[in-house]
Amino acid sequence: MTERPVGNEMWGGRFAARPDAIMQEINASIDFDKRLFHEDIDGSKAHAAMLADQGIIGREDAAEIARGLEAIRAEIVAGDFAFSREREDIHMNVEARLAEIIGPAAGRLHTARSRNDQVAVDFRLHVKGAFQAAEAAFGRLIEALLDRAEEHADTVMPGFTHLQVAQPVTFGHHCLAYVEMAARDRSRCADAITRLDECPLGAAALAGTGFAIDRHATALALGFREPTRNSIDSVSDRDFALEFLSMASIAAVHLSRLAEEIVIWSTPQFNFVRLSDAFSTGSSIMPQKRNPDAAELVRAKTGRINGALISLLTVMKGLPLAYSKDMQEDKEQVFDAIDSLAIALAATTGMVGDMTVNVAAMRAAAGHGFSTATDLADWLVRELGLPFREAHHVTGRAVALAESQKVGLEALELSALQTLEPRITEAVYAVLGVDASVRSRTSFGGTAPDNVRKAVADWRTRLLSAREVISPSGAAIKNAAAGER
Amino acid sequence: MTERPVGNEMWGGRFAARPDAIMQEINASIDFDKRLFHEDIDGSKAHAAMLADQGIIGREDAAEIARGLEAIRAEIVAGDFAFSREREDIHMNVEARLAEIIGPAAGRLHTARSRNDQVAVDFRLHVKGAFQAAEAAFGRLIEALLDRAEEHADTVMPGFTHLQVAQPVTFGHHCLAYVEMAARDRSRCADAITRLDECPLGAAALAGTGFAIDRHATALALGFREPTRNSIDSVSDRDFALEFLSMASIAAVHLSRLAEEIVIWSTPQFNFVRLSDAFSTGSSIMPQKRNPDAAELVRAKTGRINGALISLLTVMKGLPLAYSKDMQEDKEQVFDAIDSLAIALAATTGMVGDMTVNVAAMRAAAGHGFSTATDLADWLVRELGLPFREAHHVTGRAVALAESQKVGLEALELSALQTLEPRITEAVYAVLGVDASVRSRTSFGGTAPDNVRKAVADWRTRLLSAREVISPSGAAIKNAAAGER
Amino acid sequence: MTERPVGNEMWGGRFAARPDAIMQEINASIDFDKRLFHEDIDGSKAHAAMLADQGIIGREDAAEIARGLEAIRAEIVAGDFAFSREREDIHMNVEARLAEIIGPAAGRLHTARSRNDQVAVDFRLHVKGAFQAAEAAFGRLIEALLDRAEEHADTVMPGFTHLQVAQPVTFGHHCLAYVEMAARDRSRCADAITRLDECPLGAAALAGTGFAIDRHATALALGFREPTRNSIDSVSDRDFALEFLSMASIAAVHLSRLAEEIVIWSTPQFNFVRLSDAFSTGSSIMPQKRNPDAAELVRAKTGRINGALISLLTVMKGLPLAYSKDMQEDKEQVFDAIDSLAIALAATTGMVGDMTVNVAAMRAAAGHGFSTATDLADWLVRELGLPFREAHHVTGRAVALAESQKVGLEALELSALQTLEPRITEAVYAVLGVDASVRSRTSFGGTAPDNVRKAVADWRTRLLSAREVISPSGAAIKNAAAGER
Amino acid sequence: MTERPVGNEMWGGRFAARPDAIMQEINASIDFDKRLFHEDIDGSKAHAAMLADQGIIGREDAAEIARGLEAIRAEIVAGDFAFSREREDIHMNVEARLAEIIGPAAGRLHTARSRNDQVAVDFRLHVKGAFQAAEAAFGRLIEALLDRAEEHADTVMPGFTHLQVAQPVTFGHHCLAYVEMAARDRSRCADAITRLDECPLGAAALAGTGFAIDRHATALALGFREPTRNSIDSVSDRDFALEFLSMASIAAVHLSRLAEEIVIWSTPQFNFVRLSDAFSTGSSIMPQKRNPDAAELVRAKTGRINGALISLLTVMKGLPLAYSKDMQEDKEQVFDAIDSLAIALAATTGMVGDMTVNVAAMRAAAGHGFSTATDLADWLVRELGLPFREAHHVTGRAVALAESQKVGLEALELSALQTLEPRITEAVYAVLGVDASVRSRTSFGGTAPDNVRKAVADWRTRLLSAREVISPSGAAIKNAAAGER
Repeated sequence: MTERPVGNEMWGGRFAARPDAIMQEINASIDFDKRLFHEDIDGSKAHAAMLADQGIIGREDAAEIARGLEAIRAEIVAGDFAFSREREDIHMNVEARLAEIIGPAAGRLHTARSRNDQVAVDFRLHVKGAFQAAEAAFGRLIEALLDRAEEHADTVMPGFTHLQVAQPVTFGHHCLAYVEMAARDRSRCADAITRLDECPLGAAALAGTGFAIDRHATALALGFREPTRNSIDSVSDRDFALEFLSMASIAAVHLSRLAEEIVIWSTPQFNFVRLSDAFSTGSSIMPQKRNPDAAELVRAKTGRINGALISLLTVMKGLPLAYSKDMQEDKEQVFDAIDSLAIALAATTGMVGDMTVNVAAMRAAAGHGFSTATDLADWLVRELGLPFREAHHVTGRAVALAESQKVGLEALELSALQTLEPRITEAVYAVLGVDASVRSRTSFGGTAPDNVRKAVADWRTRLLSAREVISPSGAAIKNAAAGER
Repeated sequence: MTERPVGNEMWGGRFAARPDAIMQEINASIDFDKRLFHEDIDGSKAHAAMLADQGIIGREDAAEIARGLEAIRAEIVAGDFAFSREREDIHMNVEARLAEIIGPAAGRLHTARSRNDQVAVDFRLHVKGAFQAAEAAFGRLIEALLDRAEEHADTVMPGFTHLQVAQPVTFGHHCLAYVEMAARDRSRCADAITRLDECPLGAAALAGTGFAIDRHATALALGFREPTRNSIDSVSDRDFALEFLSMASIAAVHLSRLAEEIVIWSTPQFNFVRLSDAFSTGSSIMPQKRNPDAAELVRAKTGRINGALISLLTVMKGLPLAYSKDMQEDKEQVFDAIDSLAIALAATTGMVGDMTVNVAAMRAAAGHGFSTATDLADWLVRELGLPFREAHHVTGRAVALAESQKVGLEALELSALQTLEPRITEAVYAVLGVDASVRSRTSFGGTAPDNVRKAVADWRTRLLSAREVISPSGAAIKNAAAGER
Repeated sequence: MTERPVGNEMWGGRFAARPDAIMQEINASIDFDKRLFHEDIDGSKAHAAMLADQGIIGREDAAEIARGLEAIRAEIVAGDFAFSREREDIHMNVEARLAEIIGPAAGRLHTARSRNDQVAVDFRLHVKGAFQAAEAAFGRLIEALLDRAEEHADTVMPGFTHLQVAQPVTFGHHCLAYVEMAARDRSRCADAITRLDECPLGAAALAGTGFAIDRHATALALGFREPTRNSIDSVSDRDFALEFLSMASIAAVHLSRLAEEIVIWSTPQFNFVRLSDAFSTGSSIMPQKRNPDAAELVRAKTGRINGALISLLTVMKGLPLAYSKDMQEDKEQVFDAIDSLAIALAATTGMVGDMTVNVAAMRAAAGHGFSTATDLADWLVRELGLPFREAHHVTGRAVALAESQKVGLEALELSALQTLEPRITEAVYAVLGVDASVRSRTSFGGTAPDNVRKAVADWRTRLLSAREVISPSGAAIKNAAAGER
Repeated sequence: MTERPVGNEMWGGRFAARPDAIMQEINASIDFDKRLFHEDIDGSKAHAAMLADQGIIGREDAAEIARGLEAIRAEIVAGDFAFSREREDIHMNVEARLAEIIGPAAGRLHTARSRNDQVAVDFRLHVKGAFQAAEAAFGRLIEALLDRAEEHADTVMPGFTHLQVAQPVTFGHHCLAYVEMAARDRSRCADAITRLDECPLGAAALAGTGFAIDRHATALALGFREPTRNSIDSVSDRDFALEFLSMASIAAVHLSRLAEEIVIWSTPQFNFVRLSDAFSTGSSIMPQKRNPDAAELVRAKTGRINGALISLLTVMKGLPLAYSKDMQEDKEQVFDAIDSLAIALAATTGMVGDMTVNVAAMRAAAGHGFSTATDLADWLVRELGLPFREAHHVTGRAVALAESQKVGLEALELSALQTLEPRITEAVYAVLGVDASVRSRTSFGGTAPDNVRKAVADWRTRLLSAREVISPSGAAIKNAAAGER
């Protein structure tokens, strides 16, 4: 059914007396590193072209190599390439096939290069691409959140602390909190791309080479800013992968928080939002039951990404320089985290746009539990000059009064309020309702609807300029990595 | 090339406007849970047979269901089964195919059952099998270690602390330290099997059922000791998987320690052991270079298994009862850890048997740095009754003397020793050589060769009785899970 | 204010040119290992007594040593002991103070012992005590849960899947799910105690000793079943600590699930339970706001305990035998996890007993969303022999009908039901209400109130016998470790 | 002895019937958050000054508040402050003491502020300070490495892959690999500081405030670039702490790799370096034994820091906005990681400067195993134009010849080499020795001594300019946070 032993078959007699089977199983990486085929071919082409430009190999050989490599790419894309576990990894699979296609000239490709710098450049290119794709995906999430924020700049909902109603906020403002998170995630991508944008190709096994290679040329051809500065570090460094996993773990925390909110908000008890069939599953006989599967799965991806992070941190702990075979265990976890983050971001962006907001339910809940009590206390301090402690005392008595009358604070009569503090005026009602409360929170970053609208506009401007800033390098990598395909 | 989007293709426009593609990608589990097909079929057969015995469905229907399920098993084993992502998971794939094969009778199979208890029993059966396989694999490792321990009961090597030579020990004794570790790992498997040996089938969605089912019958049929006691816990519990991951993480620590030693011992500087080509890779032009790839990869698997453990602990954190979709993320990590532990154990067992021990190099290193100095001090205390502190003082002066003469302690002349302490006699030489030193360590658990030989014999006896003890349940599960295939 | 540099002061010039300060800071462990003072003193007393019994030291010396050690214990308990970082660790602090109190005889205590086996026995004794304490604490939690389960055997609440109402269950049954979890945690403690119950004292530095010591005697004196079997493993093994952390991590998952439920149930939207002031904090001006702080903190402890587990797994990865200084980093994380689990268990046990259950709110929610639809479908299959699929079809139409009438299923008229399926009789109403539904779930482990009451009784019997089983060893350790104090 | 229950005492009856003891134990944070006293006082002073500037409180009150806060700071610094667990946290301890010192005016300080934004600003200031201190500490490590790199630009050592000798490199080049790592760590600090440099003060509970506060003023006063943009995110964000832990985890990997190398290099077998007594411990009777304790402990800190990272990632997973009490568990782990990274960096920097390099041993090992075989093969390709494969073939035969003669490649006679390939000339010897080999690796980033010297010079220039670039913000925070003390 598959080419690898599945399940418990792996444990049994199969390995008992067959070291070769064990060694192939533990050693071969082609099952997962075939994912790097584009990068491997791009890297080899750049290397061969540079070798020819430097006069290290002939122009004809370089042309043959390029032709052969593109033929291999086409085979792989078409699904016609026979990956072989005997040939261990993507590099050997490509190299051996190249020899079949173009003959002895293939042998010249490996001049002034080693598998150590080859895998380093392949993997780094791939992770760079993943960072760029994540950057764009965070951008899409931000845009989806901004749309909802604008739409719901005036929608009042409870602001929670400890999952208890604390103060009214707007749903738009709540969405903007996630915009901040996603924007930080995005800026972590940008920083990481800048940091990793150095090409290890040419470090050879670990010491550099005596051939007169031009590492700046290959770096440029592959869309890197410059070559790496130290050959030993070039083949032993996996910081870029650890940094991707760190970024993804923090981003997963953000997504899990929104996912948890969607799960809770979707309960009949809260009833704040409703996911469509696109992101939930139902029951054939319980039509009201709408399971927020997509949100639950996004929440769960956090575990997977954290696991990948710990995995690679543990693998790299205490490895002597330069290259140890342990480092072959760097890829699967990173690939899994790349895919997990991608799908979690896509699902979250989808749910943000998809969910139907129950404005009435949110508004009703926002007033629960005398949530504007602090507004009253603040008003007493601000308008009447009461000391904070006394303002709190008066407010406490007002709440007790409202509770005994089973009404909200805004429904207390003025005369009743004045029995607590005679200087209270009609003006106080301007802060007692939930709408008034949110309108009053005009401090920078506060929840007032006008603040929200202004913040949305500012973010849109910021996104626009960010897009311009990042486009050149984005373009560069696209040309190098995909342009000629 | 594959049916899933690979690499960065996942990020792009593909998902941008297609909620259905996102939902299928995040929701479908068939790509990995097809691994449970044996367990799913076994569980369904046991359930159908019980339903018929209880008169809940007809005997003919039960027979049809059993026939259809075996036909499906045969298709899957033969690689002829068309797994479908539209049918989401292994349960739906099997159920839908069953309907195609046997028609409406298939609909009766799901009576008094839910996907919640179905996946719980499938996964639990699989993990139980993995525990049993691990138990056997630890046994094989122990046997390999005992063989080497017996062979090298007299082989002197340095006992290290801080990777510095501390005292001479025997290589056999060193091997036995790993026997202790593997035996603890093995006993953790046995304990876990006892704890998980309860069958959740019949818990239905989460509340149990009103049908007159016989849960003891299905438990027995599937090789479990008894049914679970609480229906809510039955569908929400994943302790058995967490316990597998815990066991595997601790075992991976043990394997990583031996792997690290093999890597260090294989350096030309240490030169204590030599792996054959079966577990190392060489260089075409540097024939001496023998990279201990298998040991390095075993060491690296620690990261992977730790990652899986953290992954599932994180997924399960804070999940309300009974079932949340997050729990679908329980399988891939566990499957990966099962396979990682299996291959790491097989490779370690292979290397233990494979490696050539350089007895001379070990012996030479054992005497380095006056490693018998504590033997001298102990002799002074034991034979001459010197207080510990004074014995240390005399010993320090003897070492200084030997160092100045550039000889070992055992090469100092008696007269020279007597200048330091006149009561020293010829008898002292019996503890100054490395062989004498290890022979003297006869305290229970000490490194003396006779101790080692006795310990090997004791372990062999213990293994024999353990094998008898575990065989009945092992047999039970084999009959239930595989017997009729 | 404290003796250690706090905060960022640590970074600065203080260390710049002072290797001694750096080395003391990184090397000294007395700040945390002083917690082991009881174990260190117990271990030394047992060792000295054995040495005297074996004639290795004099009886008078042993008596002096015992007297001195008890004097030190009294000083520490009274807070009069001057711990010194120059004396690095608890062993040296005690040993040096012993020399001050009893003079040269103190020097004989270290005969046939090393710091390596000394710290191994101290730490193992401490962790064994922690396992025993945890075992008892799980017992207290189970008892608290059984009390609530019995009290609420008939209290109907919604059974959730995906945090959506799925089927009615009883709150008593829900409590019993946590009993199962805590009982597994408890049995993991028992298994671990059995596994670790071997005494490493006498392994000396790593090779054993030539002195004629009696390791069985010291093992017995310290409450261990037997001595360890291999001296190298004795000083390099930290499995017992890893196993404590594994157990604690799985237990923390359980506690976090209940904590999450308490947080959600305490919202005004759910309003299922109410914590008293003892376990929540309020707001001076918002009297309704009751923050479930204790539950939130219990939930958060999961992170801390998982962190400790990963920490020690990472420390131990790839350490060559026998002892490396890295292993000094084994204690703080374990101590922290011991305390975190202790307080989380105490808080959870307290909350279980403390919380006021809102029976009416639970009951009202249990009927939400036609939660007895599956009961209707099952009735149609069971009583009328409808095929599963057809039963589902009829049920779906009944739900639609009820929804259009805005009533529950149990309020539909019989005639209306008969338009859907003429054979439906009055008897169907026996399964349509939530009480009838839970009463019908009488399968083994199902939620029926009688099942719940029976399960409570069974658990009480089981606990009673378990207490007897574990008491002997519990008594043994108590005598050895605390009896003479 | 201490104010907290230690060890297993925590488990027992103490909590059994005392909810208040449990709640205080789990709830109070003063034991650890007192570390934030400087930040708490700085934040309050800035807030009070702004309130006065905005006319929200009186100038005299603000002056009194400032005076009182400085008095409290002095008390704490002097060790005279009585921290109280009844007052829960640092904020309440300071606030209550302020009221004792200055009376009712203290009550005005909390206007337009909440504990939620207060703890957010305190913690963020502290973490910012830790990032700045780490940045400087990485700078010191880099300088120590550059000094050794320059000193050993010509020192030949083996370049390892798989811990097997692969090719000769220089020790200076090896040191520079760690410079690259530390420089990336340092740039991660700089990026994080830029990202977190926003002040949450003024977000109040979560919604902002209706008081006319000036958040830009407080941001500036506290050395932040600007205020945060969203009040909900302001109190719920802990990205800055997660980013510190991520940075520290990656840095710990780097330090652990060097530490592992020091441990291995310090063995008598390798004997490449020797740590002085300052960073190692000896044995009184085995003077040669020099345990690299500091290196082992640095290696172990990796576990601790990884644990802290997982801990906080797990705590934050799935927390609904805005503030949950779980977030109180954010500090201890971060404080521990700050201190662990600080001491690990100080110890590593110390060891780099301290260790004595055994140039002769390194050089001898560099030639082991025909490590210049690839140089010969490259020469054949480069100078004679042999295809890669044929060059490898000739080289393999040369190595076999040298091995049979028991000499190195450079000792083979020219005539012997010419029997393998007649065109080989005298010039080949220029690449066969280890010195010649490293001199030939002149490709950008290669190990040639001149490259090393150039790289050292370039790094020194780069550090100089970096220091200028970061100084303004560094200065700003220093003025704000420490200037007035």
